[in-house]
Amino acid sequence: MIRAGIVGGTGYTGVELLRILVLHPQVDVSVVTSRADAGSRVDKLYPSLRGYCDLQFSPPELEYLQDCDVVFFATPNGTAMLMAEALLEHGIKVIDLSADFRIKDPAEWEKWYGMQHASPELIDEAVYGLPEVNREQIKQARLIACPGCYPTAVQLGFLPLLEASVVDANGLVADVKSGVSGAGRKAEISSLMSEAGESFKAYAVAGHRHLPEIRQGLARVAGNAVGLTFVPHLTPMIRGIHATLYARLHGRAADLQALFEERYREERFVDVLPAGSHADTRNVRGSNRCQIAVHQPQGGDTVVVLSVIDNLVKGASGQAVQNMNLMFGLAEAAGLETVALYP
Amino acid sequence: MIRAGIVGGTGYTGVELLRILVLHPQVDVSVVTSRADAGSRVDKLYPSLRGYCDLQFSPPELEYLQDCDVVFFATPNGTAMLMAEALLEHGIKVIDLSADFRIKDPAEWEKWYGMQHASPELIDEAVYGLPEVNREQIKQARLIACPGCYPTAVQLGFLPLLEASVVDANGLVADVKSGVSGAGRKAEISSLMSEAGESFKAYAVAGHRHLPEIRQGLARVAGNAVGLTFVPHLTPMIRGIHATLYARLHGRAADLQALFEERYREERFVDVLPAGSHADTRNVRGSNRCQIAVHQPQGGDTVVVLSVIDNLVKGASGQAVQNMNLMFGLAEAAGLETVALYP
Amino acid sequence: MIRAGIVGGTGYTGVELLRILVLHPQVDVSVVTSRADAGSRVDKLYPSLRGYCDLQFSPPELEYLQDCDVVFFATPNGTAMLMAEALLEHGIKVIDLSADFRIKDPAEWEKWYGMQHASPELIDEAVYGLPEVNREQIKQARLIACPGCYPTAVQLGFLPLLEASVVDANGLVADVKSGVSGAGRKAEISSLMSEAGESFKAYAVAGHRHLPEIRQGLARVAGNAVGLTFVPHLTPMIRGIHATLYARLHGRAADLQALFEERYREERFVDVLPAGSHADTRNVRGSNRCQIAVHQPQGGDTVVVLSVIDNLVKGASGQAVQNMNLMFGLAEAAGLETVALYP
Amino acid sequence: MIRAGIVGGTGYTGVELLRILVLHPQVDVSVVTSRADAGSRVDKLYPSLRGYCDLQFSPPELEYLQDCDVVFFATPNGTAMLMAEALLEHGIKVIDLSADFRIKDPAEWEKWYGMQHASPELIDEAVYGLPEVNREQIKQARLIACPGCYPTAVQLGFLPLLEASVVDANGLVADVKSGVSGAGRKAEISSLMSEAGESFKAYAVAGHRHLPEIRQGLARVAGNAVGLTFVPHLTPMIRGIHATLYARLHGRAADLQALFEERYREERFVDVLPAGSHADTRNVRGSNRCQIAVHQPQGGDTVVVLSVIDNLVKGASGQAVQNMNLMFGLAEAAGLETVALYP
Repeated sequence: MIRAGIVGGTGYTGVELLRILVLHPQVDVSVVTSRADAGSRVDKLYPSLRGYCDLQFSPPELEYLQDCDVVFFATPNGTAMLMAEALLEHGIKVIDLSADFRIKDPAEWEKWYGMQHASPELIDEAVYGLPEVNREQIKQARLIACPGCYPTAVQLGFLPLLEASVVDANGLVADVKSGVSGAGRKAEISSLMSEAGESFKAYAVAGHRHLPEIRQGLARVAGNAVGLTFVPHLTPMIRGIHATLYARLHGRAADLQALFEERYREERFVDVLPAGSHADTRNVRGSNRCQIAVHQPQGGDTVVVLSVIDNLVKGASGQAVQNMNLMFGLAEAAGLETVALYP
Repeated sequence: MIRAGIVGGTGYTGVELLRILVLHPQVDVSVVTSRADAGSRVDKLYPSLRGYCDLQFSPPELEYLQDCDVVFFATPNGTAMLMAEALLEHGIKVIDLSADFRIKDPAEWEKWYGMQHASPELIDEAVYGLPEVNREQIKQARLIACPGCYPTAVQLGFLPLLEASVVDANGLVADVKSGVSGAGRKAEISSLMSEAGESFKAYAVAGHRHLPEIRQGLARVAGNAVGLTFVPHLTPMIRGIHATLYARLHGRAADLQALFEERYREERFVDVLPAGSHADTRNVRGSNRCQIAVHQPQGGDTVVVLSVIDNLVKGASGQAVQNMNLMFGLAEAAGLETVALYP
Repeated sequence: MIRAGIVGGTGYTGVELLRILVLHPQVDVSVVTSRADAGSRVDKLYPSLRGYCDLQFSPPELEYLQDCDVVFFATPNGTAMLMAEALLEHGIKVIDLSADFRIKDPAEWEKWYGMQHASPELIDEAVYGLPEVNREQIKQARLIACPGCYPTAVQLGFLPLLEASVVDANGLVADVKSGVSGAGRKAEISSLMSEAGESFKAYAVAGHRHLPEIRQGLARVAGNAVGLTFVPHLTPMIRGIHATLYARLHGRAADLQALFEERYREERFVDVLPAGSHADTRNVRGSNRCQIAVHQPQGGDTVVVLSVIDNLVKGASGQAVQNMNLMFGLAEAAGLETVALYP
Repeated sequence: MIRAGIVGGTGYTGVELLRILVLHPQVDVSVVTSRADAGSRVDKLYPSLRGYCDLQFSPPELEYLQDCDVVFFATPNGTAMLMAEALLEHGIKVIDLSADFRIKDPAEWEKWYGMQHASPELIDEAVYGLPEVNREQIKQARLIACPGCYPTAVQLGFLPLLEASVVDANGLVADVKSGVSGAGRKAEISSLMSEAGESFKAYAVAGHRHLPEIRQGLARVAGNAVGLTFVPHLTPMIRGIHATLYARLHGRAADLQALFEERYREERFVDVLPAGSHADTRNVRGSNRCQIAVHQPQGGDTVVVLSVIDNLVKGASGQAVQNMNLMFGLAEAAGLETVALYP
C-alpha cells in the first residue's frame, strides 16, 4: 500500500482527495495536516467521512510526513514551495495542487502571484501534470505541478486544434464558467450563497492568474506564443467548469469531429461526445472525466469547442490521483472509476 | 387611465406584465386571457397577485379585448400574427412580446420559426421596440415587435462599438448566459430543477432563433452585414442574462469607457458601470435596467463587453411597458421605477 | 419629508431598508453609516442603487445623525443599546432591527445574547413592533424593537389559535425554515454557497435566540407561559421563511379557516389563503406580506399552520418601515406597495 | 455474475440503479427497458454513463427479461403489480421500487393510490425492504417492496423510540423536507426550476400517500396503531431528505443518545451522529447512508430527531441494491461503498 499524506486537508481539494483516496485500493492515507484543526478528528469536520477515515489532523510539519511515499499539497499558493525540497530529499514524491510549480518562468510567476518564489531551482524539475500531454514525463517525475481547473478545461479543448494547426492561434477566446467551489473553502463575502446564488458575473477580466498558465501550455503545443483572451465567470452552482472556446479556422478545414475523436481515442478521462452534442457539467459531476463537443456553427470559419469538467476532480484532486497512479505504476484509473452523480 | 389587455397571461412574461402594470399609475389592466384557465381567477394561479388583481382569465377572443387601448401579446410565437390586424383595425395598439414581427424578411422568419407567416403585410409597419435605437418611431407606432431577451442584452452591448465603427464587424462573438425562466413556463424535462439546477450547458450552438434577430439589428447599426457567432447557455438561476461580448478593435482605439458613457448618457435604463467594474445579474434582478461594463484586457486589441439584464424585465415585460409609455406619451419610466432585488 | 438615517448600512437589512426607502414618497434618506466603508459611495458597494442613492457612508457617530427624524439600526446586536438614549434625547425616533430591546427581562436577554445590557432602563419603554398586535402603542412610541424574522412568522401563525384559546398552549411545535440571507452578510464558512447550497439542515436545536422572544410574544397573547419547541432550519435559497406550526386542538373545534380570516380581515400585510391552500415563499419574495394557510389533516385534533414571509421584508426592513409609517401618521402601506417577484 | 434487469430505466431511480450497478462487482446489468426510448442507447439519454453501459433500451416485455436473475421495477405505481407474478414464475426475483406492494391492506392501498390492485395475492408474500427491520425475511424473499423515500427517513428516526416505548405514540409529528428529484423525471410545471427554485413550500398537508406506509411501519414496531401528523415539504435542492421528528417522552427518560447508538451499532448504513450534532443532507449525498441526530431541547419532555438520507440512494435505488445483496447472499455493502459527494 502506498502511504499518502495530504497537507492542507481542510479545504475542498483536500477533502476531495480524501473522498477519492479512502476508497483507493492501493493507497493508505496515513496523515492529513491542518494547522488550525490539528488534534481534532477529520470526520468531525467532515461527517461524510465517518467510518472511512479514523485520522486526526496533524500539524503541517515534516516529522509527521516523513513516512509517506507521496505527499499531496492541497494548500494555498506559497506553501508547497517551502516544503517540497525537504520532502524530495527524504525520497517522498510530491504532488502539488497549488500553483507553485506551474509557471516555468519565475519572474512571470512572481508577477501574477505577488510573492517571491522560495524554490525556483525546483521549477524546472517539476512536471506539469496534464497526463494527456505529459504522460511519460509524469511516470518519471518526483514533483508534479497539477494544472489549475480552468487550464485543464481550456487546454484539453484547444489541444487538438493547435496540434493540428487548423486554427489561427492569435485570436483564441476562452469564455469559461466555474462553480463556486473553485473559490475554495474560505470565509469571503463574495462566496456567500446570498451573493453568489441566483446571479452570474464575470470577474478578473483584466487578467486572471490562470491566464499565463494557459498561455504557456497552449504555446508549448502550438510551438509559438498564442493570442488568448480568457474571461472567467462565476456560476451559481457548486461544482463544474464549462469552457466555451472560440477559434478561427485557417480554411474550411478538416473533419473536426474526427480530429477530436482521434486525438483522444486512447484517453480514459477525455470523452469526445457525438457530433451535434452539447456538454453538460452535471454529466461529469464527481467524476474525473472531461467531456468535449466540437461545433462549426452554420459551417462558418469559427469553431466552437465545449469542454466540461468537475473542477474538484479532473480540475484538481482526481487529476492529482491520476498523476499519482502514473508515478507509482498503477492502473491510471485506479480509484477513479466512478459514474457522475446525476441528477 | 389606459385600458390594457394581456393575451397569454399564464406564462412568465404575462405574469411579469401583471406585476408591473397593476402598480402602474396610469394603467388599468382590464382583461387577461388564457384559453386553458378561462373562468378562473388570476390570483388563484398567481397568489403573489392577491389584492392587486381581481380579474378572471378570459378566453383569447377579440370580443373580450375590444375595449382595450393597448393589447400585449405574451404568447408563444405564431399567435400575435393571427390577431394583430383585427385589433389594429379597432384602433387598438399592439405590443407583441413574441417573435412574430421581429424579422423583416418573412422568408428568413419562416426558416427559423418553422411556420408560414400569417400577416406578412404587417411586418413592415411593425417597429422594433428597442427604445435606445428606435425611440422616435416607437412613439408613432401602432404595432411594436418587442426584442427578444438575448437580442436586447447583445445589441445594447455592441451598439456603441458598431456605431463608432471601432471594431471589426466580421468577427463578433456573443457568449450569452441565461437563467431558466427564459425557457418559459412550459412543462419540459430540460427545465426541471433536477435537470437544470447545479449544472451549466450551452445549447443550440448550431443556430438559435435569436441569431437572425441579433444580426439584423447589428447590421442596421453597422450599415453592413455582420459576422457573428452567438452561443447561448443555460445557467442554474431563475432570472438574468449575462452577455459576454468579444470584438477585435481596428486600432488600439479610442477611450472605450467614454464611448459607452457618452452613448448612453441620456438613457434611463442603460447604466454604464465605472471603468474596471464587472456586471452582476443580481444587480438588475426585477428591474428594467441594463448594466454594462467595458474592458480591454491587458491593453490588447480585443474588447470585452459585459452586459446584464433581467430577461423578464428589460428583456421582455419591462421593455414592453417602456414601449407602451412611449406610445402613449407617458413618462418613459412610469411604472418602472424599482430597485433591483438584492440579495 | 421625513429625514431617515440608517446605522449599519452594509448588511442585508440595511441595503433592504435602502431599497424600500429610496422609493418611499415621504422619506428622504439623509445618512447611512458604516464604520468600515465610511467615505465611500453607497452605490459602489451596492450597484443596484445606482441612480437612486447619491450618499456616501458616514461614520456611525451621533453628529452625523442628529438632523434625522428617525434612525434605523440595522446593526449586529449590542449596538443600538449604546446609541438609542442619545438619539431619543435629541428627539429622534429610533427603530431597532436588532434584538437589543425585544426581551422585556434583561436577565433573560443577557443569558441568550451573552453580554450585559447597556440601557436596561429603555427596555420597558420600547414597543415590540409587531403592528398586528401592538398597532396603537407603536403609533405613540419613540423606540421600536422590531421583531426577529422567525418570531414574526411564528407569532402571526399562532396568534389566532392562542387568542381564541382553541389549542393546548403547552405542546406547541414550530418547525421553521429560513433562507440563507437570514444569517446576514458576514464572511462565515457555514454561509458559503458551497456549504449551504444543495443541502438542508437544522441548527441550534438545543436553543436559538429567537426562542425566548417567541415565547414572550405568545405568552402575552395566551395569557400564560406556553410550551414551545422551536427548531430552525437552513434552506438552500436566499430569501424566505416558511414556518410549519403544530398545535393540539382542545376539541374538534371551531371553523379554523373562519377564525384566521376574521382575525386578519383588516390587516393589510397578512393574507389568509383560501382553505386547502399551501403557502409558498416565492409568493411573498420582496413583499411585506405574510401569507398563511391553516389545515386540520384528516379532520384530526392537530392543526397545522403554514406561515410564510420574506425574512428581509416583513421579517425585518419592511416591517421596520411599516412601524415608521405608523409612528409618523403616514399610510401604513406607504412605500410598501409591491408585488412579490415571481418567478 | 448476477444478471439484473431494470424496468423503467429512464427515471431518476432507474438511472441511479444504473449508476450503482454498473460498478457493482457481482452484477451484470443485462437489460434496461423503456417503452418510449426502446431501441436507443442508454448512454445517449444519460451521457454520464458513456463507457459504463453499452445497452440499448428494450421494450418492457417479459421476453426481454426472462434471462435475468433479478428485475428491479423503477416504474410509476401500477406497473410492477402487472408483471411481478410472471417474473416470479420464471424464478426471477423482483425488487419493486414503486409502491405496489408496500401496503398490506389492499383496500387501503386502493384508497390512496386510486386504482384497483392487480395482484393482491402477492401482497402478503412481499417483504417490506427495510433491512434494519426485516433483514432475515429479506434474505428469504422472492419479492421485495422497497420503502418510499419519506418512509425510510421517518421510520429509521422513530424506530429506537418506539421499540423502547419511551414516547407517546399518539402524538408523533414528522416534518419532512425533500429535494425536487423526489418528484421524479416528469414534465410538470411544479417541478420546473423557475417554480421550485429559490422557494419553499409544504404540500399534501391534507394527506400524502406515504402516510399510510409510515403508519403501518411504525405500528408494526410500536405494537399498536400510532397517531402521526406527517407534513412533506419541497426544498430547493436536487437530492436529499431531512426529517425533523417530534415526540413526547413518557418520563424524563433514558439516555437517548445511548438508545440510538445501541440500536444501530451493527447497522452499516445508519450512522448515529455524536451528541449535540446536527444532520446535514450534503453529508449523505450520493451515499446509501442515513445519518441521525437526537436532541432533547432544554431537557424538556420533547425529543427531536433529525434523520437525513439521499432520497435516490438510501431512499430508493441504493436501498434496493442493499436488498438485492441480502437476497443473493452477497456482502450487504457490495457496490454501495461510496463517500458522499461534498461539497
